[in-house]
Amino acid sequence: MTPGRPVPPALAKPIAPAADNTSVETKTETGLLAAAYGAVSGDSGLVPLTLARRTPGADDVEIAIEFCGLCHSDVHATRGEWGGQAYPLVPGHEIVGTVSRVGADVTEFTVGDRVGVGCMVDSCRECDSCLDGLEQYCEKGMTGTYGANDRRNGGTTQGGYSSSIVVDRRYVLRVPESLDPAAAAPLLCAGVTTFSPLRHFGVEEGDVVGVVGLGGLGHMAVKLAKAMGAQVVVFTTSEAKVAAALELGADEVVLSRDEAAMAAANRTVDLIIDTVAAPHDLNPYFRTLRVDGALFQLGLPSEAMPPVSPGALIRRRIAYAGSLIGGIAETQEMLDFCAEHGVVADIEMVGAGQLNEAYDRMVAGDVKYRFVLDTGTLQAPAEEADA
Amino acid sequence: MTPGRPVPPALAKPIAPAADNTSVETKTETGLLAAAYGAVSGDSGLVPLTLARRTPGADDVEIAIEFCGLCHSDVHATRGEWGGQAYPLVPGHEIVGTVSRVGADVTEFTVGDRVGVGCMVDSCRECDSCLDGLEQYCEKGMTGTYGANDRRNGGTTQGGYSSSIVVDRRYVLRVPESLDPAAAAPLLCAGVTTFSPLRHFGVEEGDVVGVVGLGGLGHMAVKLAKAMGAQVVVFTTSEAKVAAALELGADEVVLSRDEAAMAAANRTVDLIIDTVAAPHDLNPYFRTLRVDGALFQLGLPSEAMPPVSPGALIRRRIAYAGSLIGGIAETQEMLDFCAEHGVVADIEMVGAGQLNEAYDRMVAGDVKYRFVLDTGTLQAPAEEADA
Repeated sequence: MTPGRPVPPALAKPIAPAADNTSVETKTETGLLAAAYGAVSGDSGLVPLTLARRTPGADDVEIAIEFCGLCHSDVHATRGEWGGQAYPLVPGHEIVGTVSRVGADVTEFTVGDRVGVGCMVDSCRECDSCLDGLEQYCEKGMTGTYGANDRRNGGTTQGGYSSSIVVDRRYVLRVPESLDPAAAAPLLCAGVTTFSPLRHFGVEEGDVVGVVGLGGLGHMAVKLAKAMGAQVVVFTTSEAKVAAALELGADEVVLSRDEAAMAAANRTVDLIIDTVAAPHDLNPYFRTLRVDGALFQLGLPSEAMPPVSPGALIRRRIAYAGSLIGGIAETQEMLDFCAEHGVVADIEMVGAGQLNEAYDRMVAGDVKYRFVLDTGTLQAPAEEADA
Repeated sequence: MTPGRPVPPALAKPIAPAADNTSVETKTETGLLAAAYGAVSGDSGLVPLTLARRTPGADDVEIAIEFCGLCHSDVHATRGEWGGQAYPLVPGHEIVGTVSRVGADVTEFTVGDRVGVGCMVDSCRECDSCLDGLEQYCEKGMTGTYGANDRRNGGTTQGGYSSSIVVDRRYVLRVPESLDPAAAAPLLCAGVTTFSPLRHFGVEEGDVVGVVGLGGLGHMAVKLAKAMGAQVVVFTTSEAKVAAALELGADEVVLSRDEAAMAAANRTVDLIIDTVAAPHDLNPYFRTLRVDGALFQLGLPSEAMPPVSPGALIRRRIAYAGSLIGGIAETQEMLDFCAEHGVVADIEMVGAGQLNEAYDRMVAGDVKYRFVLDTGTLQAPAEEADA
C-alpha cells in the first residue's frame, strides 16, 4: 500500500515525469502525489502514471486506497470505446481503503476508518434527484469517479487504480469491518448496481428472481437476491456456467438457447436482473415473467438491441426498465446489508503488472467473477521514491 | 331498441337464415334471437346477422343493448388483420344497456338496471390474476366479449353490435344513472384502458401526464388524467389536433416532430400514456420523462416497433410498460369515478347502416373521438319480425 504524502506546491503543477512514469497534468490544486495506472490513449493499454491529488478541503476525506475492483466499464473507457474520452485516464470506481486525512468539517470519518468510494464523487446536491437520495440521476449530472468533468475545477476526475484519492465526505461510504476489504471492493459498483433494482422492485422472501448473464454483476445479483430470501433462476447461454451458477446459490439454471426450457419457464419469474451488455433479444425473457413482472436492464450495449414486442408487455402489464448504480444512502444500506448477510464478491486478486492481461481476460469472459487490483503493487510516485 | 325475446328451442339450432340476414350457427343452448351486424369474412364488411343468445343460467344477466362503442380493434378483428379469425363475427365490447332478465342466483342486478359490458365476459376465476381482480391477465386467458373461444361450450363469443347479450353477472358493470348511456359506452374499453395505467402508476394532483395520440383512447386519457388533478401534455404529430387537445382540457400540446419543442419538454413528464397503435420511435418520449417516469404503451402495432435505447431507460430508471384494459372491480371503480367527475367520451352516434362508412372513417382517423352504434337501428331478427 502506497498512501503517498502531501506534495509541496512547487512540485505540483506540472508534475515532472518520472523515469518510467508518464505525468498527468491536472488542473486541480495539488495535494498528494499518487502512484497510479491508467491509459494515455485508446490503444496504450494501462501504464504507470503519477497523479496529483488535491489537498483535502474542509469537507474532504483523503483515502489511502488498498483495493480497487476492475469493472468492465473501465475497459470500455480506457480503450475509448464510448467515444469522447480525455486522456490520460486512470480508471477504477470500486475503491476500498482507509482514511489517511480529513478536512476540518468532516466529523463522520476519522483517520484509519475503512471506507469505500463507488461510481460517483460529486453531484449538484440541489436537484430533486439529489434531495431524494438518487444522486446517480442528478439533473445536472453526477460527477463520475473517473473520466468526468470535475465541477470543482473543470479538470478530469481520476479513479481508483491509484494509491490515494480525495473525495468529498458526502460521497464516501463506510465499509463494515466484518467484510473482507478486497472482496468488498466490487460491492461499490457491481454490488449496488444489482442491489438497487432488487430493492426498488421490493424483492422479498419467496419471490422468484431471474438473473441474465453470470459475470461480475450477475454473480452479485445471485448472491444479493438469495440473501433477500428470493428463489433465483439464472439464465445463461453457456452450459459451462450451470455448475458455477448452482455453486453461487442459484436454485435453478435455464439455458436460454433451449426453447423447451424457456417455454417451461413461462410465467414463473417476478423480476429479471439483466446484466448482459451485448445486444440480445429480450422478448423470450418477458415471456418468463409473471403479471406485473419487471425486467431491469443494467448493461448498456454499444449497438442497438432487437425490438421489443409491446404485446409481451401489454399482455401481463410487464415493465422493461433501466437502473443505474444506486444512491449514496442506498450504497451504504447495501454495504450494511452485505455485512449482515456475509455477502462479498468472488474475486481474483491482480497486481498492477497484470492489469492489461486482466483486461483481455475480462473481455474474454475469463474471470470468476471480478478482478481486484491490490494497490500495494503500484509503484511509488517518482518524487516520493526520490525523497 | 330491439331487446329481442326468448326463442323456442325448436327454432334455435341452427337458426334459419332470414330473407336478408345471414344466420350465425352457434354451439350454445339458445335463448334470445338477437338482431346484429357482423362480418362473415375478412372482406365482407359488416352485414345484418341474427344471433342466438343463450337462455340465462343461474348466474347470468340478459341485457337489452342500447348502445355499443366502435373500437379500432373491432376493425382489425372483423377484417381478419390479426389473423386466425373465425367467422361470422359480431364485434363490439363497449356495451351499455338495461337488464331484461336475470338468473336465479343473480341478486346484484334487477330488470331495468342500466349496466355495461366491456372487453371480457369470463375468466377462470381461480388463478392468482383472477383472485387479484386482474381478470384481464387471467392465466388461462380471459374470454373476450367477441371472437373468443367460449369456455362454457366451445363456441365463439359474439359482441355488442347486437340487440341483446347474455353475460355472467361477475362480468357485468353497473353504469351510474348520471352518465349519458351512449357517451358512457366507450368508457367500457377506451375509458378503463387509460384509467387503469393512470391508477396503477398512482397519478395524483400536480403530476404531469403526457398523452401520445389523440384518438378514442387518447381523448379519454386526457379527460381522466385531468379529473385526477394532473397537468396534461398532449404529444401529437398533427398541427390540426392542437386546438382540439386544448379544448379537451390539455394544458399543453407538443408537436412531436418539432425537435426543439421535444427538447424543451426534456425531463418534464411523470407518466406517458401512449395510445398510438402504429410503429413509432419511443426514444424521444423517454427523454421527456423525469426520473422514475414510465411510459405505458396501450396500442399493439401489427409491425415491429423501432428498437428501444436501453440508455434512455437506465439513465433515469424509466419503465417502459404495457397495460391491457382493466379488471372488473377496477372497471366499476372507473365508472363510478367518471360519474363523480362528470367524465364521458365525446361521441358521434351512428346507425347500423353507417357502420361500414364509420369503419373507413376510423381508419382515416376521422372521428371525434368515438363512434357509438345506436342498436335501436338494428333490424329485428327475422323470426321475431315474422311472429
